[in-house]
Amino acid sequence: MSDKVLLDYGSGGRASQRLISELFLKYLGNDELNRLNDAAELSLSGRLAMSTDSFTVDPIFFPGGNIGSLAVHGTVNDVAMMGAVPRYLTCGYIIEEGLPMDDLETIVASMGEAAEHAGVQIVTGDTKVVPKGAVDKIFINTTGIGEIIVDPSPGGDRARPGDAVLVSGTIGDHGLTILGTREGLDFEAKVESDSASLNHLLVRLVRELPDVHVLRDPTRGGLATTLNEITASSGVCCELVENDLPVRPEVRGGCSILGLDPLYLANEGKFLCIVPQEDADKALEIMRADPLGRDACRIGTMTDANPGKVVLVTQLGGKRLLNMLEGEQLPRIC
Amino acid sequence: MSDKVLLDYGSGGRASQRLISELFLKYLGNDELNRLNDAAELSLSGRLAMSTDSFTVDPIFFPGGNIGSLAVHGTVNDVAMMGAVPRYLTCGYIIEEGLPMDDLETIVASMGEAAEHAGVQIVTGDTKVVPKGAVDKIFINTTGIGEIIVDPSPGGDRARPGDAVLVSGTIGDHGLTILGTREGLDFEAKVESDSASLNHLLVRLVRELPDVHVLRDPTRGGLATTLNEITASSGVCCELVENDLPVRPEVRGGCSILGLDPLYLANEGKFLCIVPQEDADKALEIMRADPLGRDACRIGTMTDANPGKVVLVTQLGGKRLLNMLEGEQLPRIC
Repeated sequence: MSDKVLLDYGSGGRASQRLISELFLKYLGNDELNRLNDAAELSLSGRLAMSTDSFTVDPIFFPGGNIGSLAVHGTVNDVAMMGAVPRYLTCGYIIEEGLPMDDLETIVASMGEAAEHAGVQIVTGDTKVVPKGAVDKIFINTTGIGEIIVDPSPGGDRARPGDAVLVSGTIGDHGLTILGTREGLDFEAKVESDSASLNHLLVRLVRELPDVHVLRDPTRGGLATTLNEITASSGVCCELVENDLPVRPEVRGGCSILGLDPLYLANEGKFLCIVPQEDADKALEIMRADPLGRDACRIGTMTDANPGKVVLVTQLGGKRLLNMLEGEQLPRIC
Repeated sequence: MSDKVLLDYGSGGRASQRLISELFLKYLGNDELNRLNDAAELSLSGRLAMSTDSFTVDPIFFPGGNIGSLAVHGTVNDVAMMGAVPRYLTCGYIIEEGLPMDDLETIVASMGEAAEHAGVQIVTGDTKVVPKGAVDKIFINTTGIGEIIVDPSPGGDRARPGDAVLVSGTIGDHGLTILGTREGLDFEAKVESDSASLNHLLVRLVRELPDVHVLRDPTRGGLATTLNEITASSGVCCELVENDLPVRPEVRGGCSILGLDPLYLANEGKFLCIVPQEDADKALEIMRADPLGRDACRIGTMTDANPGKVVLVTQLGGKRLLNMLEGEQLPRIC
């Protein structure tokens, strides 16, 4: 194969087949994908969760991951947030003519590793190569499906006054890493993306605590925006305690230099967990037993004070309203 | 909303929500999509078919359709080719900052109409807006899922010597239309894309003839490439009769001016149907009873002469080998 991705590789013809067999099947192959039909045949039953996401992150390689691993983690997490065991992914590549083949190989290999780690199979895919300038390097869509194992499944409209608001770890890591890498900033301390598949931890959590009310990953728009969505859907108020928000000192430092608020920065390996008060300690115990949840903590409470609002109780004891993100803080963050 | 798509609309914040509620839900809304969870909850059972496709067609509007309707038709068809009833689609938009909002609305409205016509629901989606120059106008991924209603399902490896090779209508219409529109060519006679959802016809076909061996839509790479894939997977030879190939005179004319071969041009509303000899007449009868199959005809036979090859019996009685498309004839055809 050429050392760059050529238009021919997206033709649907012989060159496409070579790319598929020598690259995609090498790293992603499984019985179903290897059949190369127009569609995959799957066996699943019951209530299913299905989610889609297109990844356009810039740069495509960053500390802690790349666009390939991110594309697996992101969709695996969205499916798992429904209280589901993610099972299958599809994968659609849109590649700019001229992308170094080594870059594509690194990305596809990362997807294979991430899929294996998450215990999901990539069962069907699509590859388009577009002329130079029609897309910036590579964009990847993944769509995932899984089996829901709790009834009812967690949902953004299920938060209730009195519920505890927990987060699985530090916030802002992914967003600051992408921005720092894109702008060529060299932070004194190491900052890296938290991109990870949370499904194994989430499945344990909902198996032990089937009454989890809400699970959400605070990606684009960050924790503040996600909480605003939840309070709006549920008609409750969220009171966050500023002192309890877990932010790495290096992320806090980077944010203050750049004028960014970690509450609005994307996370790709964290989740919000909203549970009845009496389940909070058990939930934290389960989360902390997993390396991906070791910094889990309680950050607030749902109340009935100001339905639809998110209120931050500041370090000085004042209260500040946290609005949903209005404009775009960071395009191409995921 | 602004008259152009702004970066803000892809932020995941308030502007995104406005775009979702005022545009996407208006045209695509249904109970599941309206819930706006990270993933949709679906009820499906048994053997499922799942397929994904990213659409990058240039131009985004063309005679006979646009990128939105094409994105629905293409994935609905890929699912249906498995002998399945397509049920649900996901939709991922990647939009260039500055795309006229009217264009986006036309595209989304077309998707809504196409989904309704095909009897599928768009249950979850994702919207990214990227800075000007990072993508050419708009790319759309759709991923579909449906329930397989025959056992075994049709597959590219199931063609047998003696099978009849049928096509549901004229070939080359989509490919020539896109190229003509892109290059600003004005063909004397009207040429338009055949883009359409074939699922209703296909479901009738497999219900009445459950032993259909192969169903495939000859999209990128055209009829010749698709037949090469089938002969390779099945280990049979396909003998096509040139005189029997259905090509509209205006498509034939356009191709001869441009030096294109309709056998290698993409189709978006046609399918190949390979059935046991004794089922051929019945299959044609079913196909011709549907407006989308009214020009259905027999174009060849599978033999055991040259396994893996596709041979064209020319008008003069000679034989010509039809190879799989080697390079890229037309990038961004779908």
